[in-house]
This record gives sequence, C-alpha cells and structure tokens, in this order.
Amino acid sequence: MDRAEGQLSPETNEVLADLKAAWPVMSPDERVDALKLLPEDEAEEFFLALTPREQSQLLVILPTLTRRAWLRLLPLDDAADVIQHAPREERDSLLKLLDEVSLREVRALLAYAEDEAGGLMNPRFARLRPEMTVDEAILYLRRQAQQKDRPIYYCYVLDTEQKLKGVLSFRQLLTAPAAKRIEEVMISDVVTVAEDLDQEKIAPLFSAKNLVALPVLDAAGRMKGVVSAEDMVDVVQEEATEDIQKMAGVAALEAPYLQVSILEMVRKRAGWLAILFLGGTLTASAIDRFDEQLSKWKILMAFIPLIISSGGNSGSQSATLVIRALALGELRLVDWWRVFRRELVGSLVLGLFLAAIGMLRVLIWQWAFDDYGEHFMRLTLTVAFSVLGVVVFGSLVGSLLPFALRMLKLDPATACTPFVATFCDVTGLVIYFAVCAWIYIPFVPVGG
Amino acid sequence: MDRAEGQLSPETNEVLADLKAAWPVMSPDERVDALKLLPEDEAEEFFLALTPREQSQLLVILPTLTRRAWLRLLPLDDAADVIQHAPREERDSLLKLLDEVSLREVRALLAYAEDEAGGLMNPRFARLRPEMTVDEAILYLRRQAQQKDRPIYYCYVLDTEQKLKGVLSFRQLLTAPAAKRIEEVMISDVVTVAEDLDQEKIAPLFSAKNLVALPVLDAAGRMKGVVSAEDMVDVVQEEATEDIQKMAGVAALEAPYLQVSILEMVRKRAGWLAILFLGGTLTASAIDRFDEQLSKWKILMAFIPLIISSGGNSGSQSATLVIRALALGELRLVDWWRVFRRELVGSLVLGLFLAAIGMLRVLIWQWAFDDYGEHFMRLTLTVAFSVLGVVVFGSLVGSLLPFALRMLKLDPATACTPFVATFCDVTGLVIYFAVCAWIYIPFVPVGG
Repeated sequence: MDRAEGQLSPETNEVLADLKAAWPVMSPDERVDALKLLPEDEAEEFFLALTPREQSQLLVILPTLTRRAWLRLLPLDDAADVIQHAPREERDSLLKLLDEVSLREVRALLAYAEDEAGGLMNPRFARLRPEMTVDEAILYLRRQAQQKDRPIYYCYVLDTEQKLKGVLSFRQLLTAPAAKRIEEVMISDVVTVAEDLDQEKIAPLFSAKNLVALPVLDAAGRMKGVVSAEDMVDVVQEEATEDIQKMAGVAALEAPYLQVSILEMVRKRAGWLAILFLGGTLTASAIDRFDEQLSKWKILMAFIPLIISSGGNSGSQSATLVIRALALGELRLVDWWRVFRRELVGSLVLGLFLAAIGMLRVLIWQWAFDDYGEHFMRLTLTVAFSVLGVVVFGSLVGSLLPFALRMLKLDPATACTPFVATFCDVTGLVIYFAVCAWIYIPFVPVGG
Repeated sequence: MDRAEGQLSPETNEVLADLKAAWPVMSPDERVDALKLLPEDEAEEFFLALTPREQSQLLVILPTLTRRAWLRLLPLDDAADVIQHAPREERDSLLKLLDEVSLREVRALLAYAEDEAGGLMNPRFARLRPEMTVDEAILYLRRQAQQKDRPIYYCYVLDTEQKLKGVLSFRQLLTAPAAKRIEEVMISDVVTVAEDLDQEKIAPLFSAKNLVALPVLDAAGRMKGVVSAEDMVDVVQEEATEDIQKMAGVAALEAPYLQVSILEMVRKRAGWLAILFLGGTLTASAIDRFDEQLSKWKILMAFIPLIISSGGNSGSQSATLVIRALALGELRLVDWWRVFRRELVGSLVLGLFLAAIGMLRVLIWQWAFDDYGEHFMRLTLTVAFSVLGVVVFGSLVGSLLPFALRMLKLDPATACTPFVATFCDVTGLVIYFAVCAWIYIPFVPVGG
C-alpha cells in the first residue's frame, strides 16, 4: 500500500493519535497487545506513521510474519533507516526479510551516512529513455506494475549509462503532444545534488527554488535516487531542533525528550554546565581580586548581578540572531563587518535605554528610601555607564563569536547562549570595576 | 514557465547565488540594472527564486511590462504573498496586472491570514469526476492546456458540489486498468485540513504521515486548494526561527537579519531587555537586604555570580528542551508530571556533579593560596549545598514554566531562556542566603 496515499479519515486519526501519545510510556508487550486490538489496515497505518526509531523498536518484537509484511510496506529509504536504528545484532535478520532486489538496494543505502543526500534518497524512480515518444512513454509507464512505493512526480530521462539527461513531470508528460520524442519535451537543465552532500545544504535548495524532488548523482554523473520535499520537512525540523539544543548548551539529543534516558540526558547537559561553572568560578576570582576595595563600598557589590546579567542578556540576543541567520544562509562570513556596525549602533541605543532605566531605579530608591546616601549621583552615573558598557560589549561579543566559530569550521550554534552569557558575566565585572574605579571609588569615602 | 521544473544547471546557479548574496545591500536602481544584464530567462529564474518580500520590493520598481509578465509567472498562492508584502497603496495596481480568473482567485486568497492553511494553499489543482473512466480521465487531463503552475501530483475527485470524494496520484491513474471508473480506483480515505487551520498544526501532519500534498476544505466540505510539502519546508523553517528568536528574548523578526532596520531591531530587543533589567534590579534589592550580614563575611559575596548563574544555566537548558519538545508535539500538557519527575532526578545528578566541582574549586584554592582561612570547610559545604539547590530549583522552574504558559494559552517559547535565567538569579540568591544562614554565618566569626 502506498504510504502517502493510504490516508485516514480525521476520526480514525484521533483514536490513533491517542495511542501514539501513550506509545512512549508503553512497555514492548503492551505495544504488541494494543496493535492486536486494531483492525489490520489500521495497525499498518499506525506502524507507518511511527518514526524510524519507533518502527525499529517495534519490528524486533513482532512475530516473524508480521515483521516481514510490515518491513516490506516501507519505502526502501525508510526501510534502510529502520534497519539503521535496530541493534547491530538484529540488522542481519531484518535484512533477510526483504526480497532480493530490495535487499540489494537497501544494502546500498546503508553504505551512506544517515545525514547525506545518499542516505535520504529513494533509489526507486520512474525512468524514461530520451528516444521514446510521449505516447510510448505513457504506455510504458502504464504497463509497469504498480509499485508499493511513494508517489513520484517526475520521470527521469537516463541514457544507457544511467546518466541523467533531463526531467519531465507526469503532468507535462500527459499534456505533451503524443508524437514528440521525450528529448524534445524534457527539461534538460536540472538542479542535482551529489550523493555525499550534507542534508543541511539540501534544505536551502528546496526552499529557494520551491523544488518538489531533487535527483541524486554519484561522482560519475549516474543517477542514484531522488530526495523529495516531504523528506526535507523532517530534516529541517531535526536540524532546527539540534541547533536550538546546542544553543542552550545541550549536546543534541538523538530522540524525543521522553525517550532519552535520564542518564543520557544528564550526560548531554553536564558537559556545558561544567564548562560554564568553571567559567563562572572566574567571576568569583575576579570579585575576590577587587573586593579588597569593593567591600569598603558595599553598595557597589549589590549591583553586580544586575549589571553583569544585562551584558549576558543582550549578548545572548545577538548571538541567537546571528547564529540563526548564519544557519539560514541569510548571513555569510564576509558580512561580519556589516553585522559589527549594525550591532554597535543598535547596542548603543539599547544600552542608553537600559542605562536610563538603571538611573531611574537608583533615583527612585534614593527618593523613596534614601538608600544611597549623599553620593547617590555618583552611584547613578556608575550604574548608567556600566550598563551601557556591558550591553555594547555583550552585543559585539555575542554577534561576532558565531562568525569566529564558523571561520574555525566549527558549528556556530556551539556558541551556546549560556556560554556567551557567562563570558559576558566575567568581562562585565571587569567593565563594572573599571567604571567604579573611574567615577565612584576615588570620590566617595569608604562605606558610602 | 513552471517554477519547479525550469531548473538551472549548477554553474548558472553559482553566478546567480553571488547576485543573490549581494542583493540585500543593493539599491533599487542597482537591482534593476543588474537584472537587465542577465539573459531574459535567467532574470526570470532569479526573480522566481527570491522571497515574496524581495519579489514585492522588486516588482514595484520594474517597468510595467516586465512587472505584468513576472507577476503572472508566479503560482497564484505566491502571487498573493507578493501582493500582501507590497505597500498598501501599491496593492491595487499589482492586482490589476492579473488576468480576470487569477484576479478572482488571488482576491480569495488574500482574505485568508498568511499563516493559516487557506493562506498557504494553491487554489489550482487537477479535478476529476467520480464517474469518469480511467481512460477518459487521462484523455481529459491531456486535453487541458499546460498551465503555468506548480506540478501537481494528485488528481482530486470532486462531486458536482465541489465536495472531495477521493484522491488519485497521476502515477496511480496511469497504472490503473483503463476501463475502471475513477470512483473504483480512487482512495476515499483522505487526510484533509480546514481552511483556517494554523500553519504550525499542518507541519506535524506532513511529517507524521509523509504526505506530499494536503487538500484544504471549507466548513461545508468543499475543496478550496492544496497545500504541498515544498511549502512546508519554508513554514517549518520560519516557525523554528520564530521560536529560536523568542527563546532568546527577541520578538520574532519579520525579515532576514540584514533587512531589518536597526531601529526595528532595537525595538524587537528592547522589550525583553527592559523586563529582564527590571527583574534584575530585584537581585540588587535582595543583596541590599541581606548585605548587612553578608558584607561582614565578604568571601560569601564573591560566590554570588557563580552560584546564581549555575541555576540560570540549568534552568535555560531545561526550558529549551521542554519548549522544543512541546513545539514538536513530543510532549503534551498532561506530561508535566512525568517531566517534573525526570527533571527532579536528572537535576539532582547534575547538581551533585556541579557541587563536587564547586567543592574542588574551593579546596584547591584553599590548598594553593590559603584564601579562605580556617573555616574553609564550611565555605566548601555552603557552596556545594547552594549549587545543588539552585540547579535543582532552576531545572524544575525551567521545565515547568513552558507548561504553565501553554496552559494559559500563551506560546511556551515566550518563556525565553534569559527570563528563566533572571528568575533563577533572583531565587538563587534567596537559596544561597538561606544556605549561608544555615551552615556558615552562625559558626564563623565576622570577616572569616
């Protein structure tokens, strides 16, 4: 049965949605039992809607007959994914469930990395010869047996060496004059991708050109398969999730939140937390260093967290904006200078705005509680200049760090925002102490 | 010319990619001049690959003839997008460039919000009647003129009231027995979406069911158009970008980074920065309140930023993981209790790990510099218990806040991670002071 075409009514969908929601917390036995309660075609539909990981977990505990039938329901690229997710010792027995032709094709797919074009593509597609007429081509396609596979929108025109000569949609084929030769009506200018292209680079092609399907070629120009837009929906989601997790200082999870074991989750989070913590100890050292002086003006200590977190927050904002723009291809390396100028102007405005709020805060407290003694105007200015300084510095660091990482061939998303925030904490302290030493300390008697 | 099918060779692509990269910094006149240098078909291709916003900016400055020709190149749903992006006073003159039928269809599309199913769909699709035979259907489709529109993969079977009866791919149509009636070979169990469904809810349908295209129905069940997978690639990217920006405390940008004016950018960032700054002043108040005591033990002050930022960092991690899992539908509201338990266990482990690092830090400094005097063991324990406390508290707050927002019908992504971090700063101070008052202050003479 064709996966995209055997679609369910909205009502059935709801029942299955409930089962799917409960799925992660069910034991293997409960899962098999629940599926036995469903009519056969709904159980199949349910299986097809699971993620490759879930399909894999289920397949290995099903009775052999169902296992074989269901594995064969899958388009070959999905079957390859499922086998890739199975424990190593189960893979061979799963492969043996396939018929001979599929086995060979799935083996070929398994040789690709999961995140390159070859690992995403479907190796089955409609082939035509350039010298056929339109009528012959339609007859030829009609004679071919209906395949249990995804619908395909294009016919690919290959020469005898499997090299791609052109492309033709089914619709164009149907509407072309019957007697013309395929090579006369096909489009020969085709966007293609190499089989080892990273999936991150494929999504922008779909998006910029509104593509439906992209042919995948090997180094010799032979066509190996087709990547289609509906595969890219998942890829784009996955890549965005990975970036989001990295930006929060979590190593990318390999499964949905509830399916990652707690221990695994701790491991994914501990790395950055430890690094950030060690970075944070630098603030303790910095304060230690200055506190001989600062502790004599204890009011200055009270403003430390406020001021350094302002730098961290604006740095996180800039870093996030730039990381995402780099990921979407809106910014390239050469744009760093334009970004620098934009952030400089923007953060000056933001810094002045926050400095004004900070001044108001001190003045209102002074007026209401007389908290800050006779030198409150110096305190006001100290807070204002420090906030301005850390916001500008934070924004510049946050926006340039992702460029630096990209230049070092690292993923800009590793400039996780907590790292930027911690970095800005430490440097923010230095800025604050410098401003104190400039405006406040020399002029205010100890304890003021 | 068909957008997805008139594809360019990789070399031409590169030239155009350079032009596209320079595009945002070019003046309107430079853009028109650059396009004049390209051969006509390449200029058209280039235009088609621009975003709707860029197409709109370009169209309004082109000579009328080109403007009319290029607007008519666009599939109707894209034409509607372009007109929506044009300044209000230009919209009517753009609409007048369309032929009468298209004008009516585009007007209908403009009535939908941009981010609902109706605003995404293409109103043109291949229609068949249930009582046609397969042969008649193929002939019927072949007789229809080739439309300047996106390729369509399915034929939709409608009754006389335009109600959707079933669906059939071109491939299935070609391979079905010639004499069968369409209603005998069509699939009648179709997943559909309502015309006012939010685009965020459509993407998971494509992803879970590997769909290629989804028919859009009005409230009376009449078919209005088709949303296809290649539209979803953009939607998914946009939604992810919006979430990422919100999570960093930036109101979602409406254009690529370099195309947002600096003033607009400042406005998008100032709101959260001001709120966070005001929240941060609470830390100053909290420290003010406790510092009568704390300033007597100045070493305790030095650890404030380290400890509170540990809470903020782990809180940001948890918030990010939960926000993304909610957005992807991996978590639902009822899962909050399971998340709570997971985060409790996980954060205890993480907290103990960081507490151990913190203890080591104090002990090593003590050993190397004898910084902390004879009561260093009390300081060690104070740091350890505080870190454990803030990490657990931060993780729980960070993971539950997105649920609370969703319960209040707000977007969980508004639980921006800097907000969680600032919240954890303030509460972290309270935890720290409590631990100090418990383990350190009563036992250590002033100044220790």
